[in-house]
Amino acid sequence: MSVIGIAGAGAWGSALANAAALAGNDVILWMRDSAQCAALAETRTNERFLPGIRLHDRISLTTNLSDLAGADAVLLVTPAQTTREMAAALAAVLPPATPLVLCAKGIERQTRAFLCNVVQEVRPDAPVAVLSGPSFAHDVARGLPTAVTLACEDAALAETIAAALSGPTFRVYHATDIRGVEIGGAAKNVLAIACGAVAGRKLGESAKAALVARGFAELLRFARAYGGQAETLMGLSGLGDLVLTCSTPQSRNFAFGMRLGEGLSPEAAAGGKLVEGAATASALMALARDKEIDMPIAEAVEQILSGAWTVDQAVDALMNRPLKSET
Amino acid sequence: MSVIGIAGAGAWGSALANAAALAGNDVILWMRDSAQCAALAETRTNERFLPGIRLHDRISLTTNLSDLAGADAVLLVTPAQTTREMAAALAAVLPPATPLVLCAKGIERQTRAFLCNVVQEVRPDAPVAVLSGPSFAHDVARGLPTAVTLACEDAALAETIAAALSGPTFRVYHATDIRGVEIGGAAKNVLAIACGAVAGRKLGESAKAALVARGFAELLRFARAYGGQAETLMGLSGLGDLVLTCSTPQSRNFAFGMRLGEGLSPEAAAGGKLVEGAATASALMALARDKEIDMPIAEAVEQILSGAWTVDQAVDALMNRPLKSET
Repeated sequence: MSVIGIAGAGAWGSALANAAALAGNDVILWMRDSAQCAALAETRTNERFLPGIRLHDRISLTTNLSDLAGADAVLLVTPAQTTREMAAALAAVLPPATPLVLCAKGIERQTRAFLCNVVQEVRPDAPVAVLSGPSFAHDVARGLPTAVTLACEDAALAETIAAALSGPTFRVYHATDIRGVEIGGAAKNVLAIACGAVAGRKLGESAKAALVARGFAELLRFARAYGGQAETLMGLSGLGDLVLTCSTPQSRNFAFGMRLGEGLSPEAAAGGKLVEGAATASALMALARDKEIDMPIAEAVEQILSGAWTVDQAVDALMNRPLKSET
Repeated sequence: MSVIGIAGAGAWGSALANAAALAGNDVILWMRDSAQCAALAETRTNERFLPGIRLHDRISLTTNLSDLAGADAVLLVTPAQTTREMAAALAAVLPPATPLVLCAKGIERQTRAFLCNVVQEVRPDAPVAVLSGPSFAHDVARGLPTAVTLACEDAALAETIAAALSGPTFRVYHATDIRGVEIGGAAKNVLAIACGAVAGRKLGESAKAALVARGFAELLRFARAYGGQAETLMGLSGLGDLVLTCSTPQSRNFAFGMRLGEGLSPEAAAGGKLVEGAATASALMALARDKEIDMPIAEAVEQILSGAWTVDQAVDALMNRPLKSET
């Protein structure tokens, strides 16, 4: 590959643009906002989302989606709930064979559909891939060592795109279990809210670690029921991303959970910002109920978000479950 | 059960004594040092190892190992490398049917034997159990929510001891896969050194999370080869404890790794203190080589500890492995 299109110039889109350019590709970075585009063209620095990082010279900027038409692959890096709209807009300008690589994580709220299914509905004949893994935009942009997974049902295409994006510090492993990768990415944001609440309530590192382990077991049960592979969930996009998201307030979902744990209401804790895990929690639990999957931690998050439980009530509910064999 | 003996009055032994007393047992806490015993008897506070925590009234103190003879179960909470000596001393005073619960984590260096095998050699007819999981002594002692696993081949005995130790905030799950629990506890200390080195070298949270995920895959390969069950490794004593140990300098192994990452030699980083993961690393890798198990992260720790690699050389070696399919 030699030309990579990127739709979305937030922190992650800008970081991926730099990584793709460093890996030797020409990159076209699309954004909706023409004022942002003009500022970026002048300063070559995304001061709002990725301050202090200079955009690579091989990145060109555009607000015209059709400029992505010549790309060998397009990375979609807009918020999860915009996936359908963006996939439709891209379908109108991209050749049918151009692969679309989903970089957002979540479940479409209204339809409870996984995002790759949303894209496949809109572009039924086009290849779809998912990029996911433990990767803060700032770490990738600063050239710190990072490792992620790129999954596509077409193994050869997965390997080609992964190789095209891999650079000296950004390692992209390839895989074919796109469903497993998607589930890990979506569900870990819900668990991160729970971990944040434990931290905000000052329940200790031991409690948080137990929550990660018990939460991972929930995630695995969910993935098995919905066709993801256990090995995928144990990898970078599952366990790796779960660990990252649950370890620091740099994660927006964790920070949101911390504020819940400190006693703020869900509205006050969100502060008007989009929290992907909060948007995903009810869709995740609806899917879990459809298949009778036991997910007490995800359910506790749902109850807190709906206002039915306080954080302390959720902790009590989890601590008072009958003690049984661990596995 | 109503009487629990505890051999070892460090931070973890003292915390477990309090937890067992809170769960409704009479507790006999043994320690070697008569000066420590006299001080504890007077102040009822283990100022050296567990400052600020008052010992429960149901705990009696002794320096005479034979005072544990009447206990329904004895928890062995001395350092891993003293297990053989302590098991032999206990064998001389305990009735053959008294279960011994191993609370240390590691592999015996000289023989490369798992600790429960060491105990079984010394007390071949006595039941042996393992207690493990994400649990900082201070979290348990302060009554923060914690969850651990107690494994014993005899499922009914595992359930009995787990129930006897469980209290309102200290949850003990039972299991039968003693080998899986032991492997998780021993191997995670080695991986914690690697995570600490990444933190000390300031390589970022993303790199650390990737290391946890890739390290967990190593741990799982090792466990499968040595008869542990994957489900156990994914639980509290495996993944849970790995996450805890790799997340904060409160863990001695992680703190040791951090100092290595900051450029100190292994000797200077240890500062004369016992670092269990350093003691275990070479035994773990010897066992891995016996069965040709690929463990590049554990191997990197071994190379750093032997002085063969710097931390940067280890990072380069890990980052330059050929990129392949993730699973």
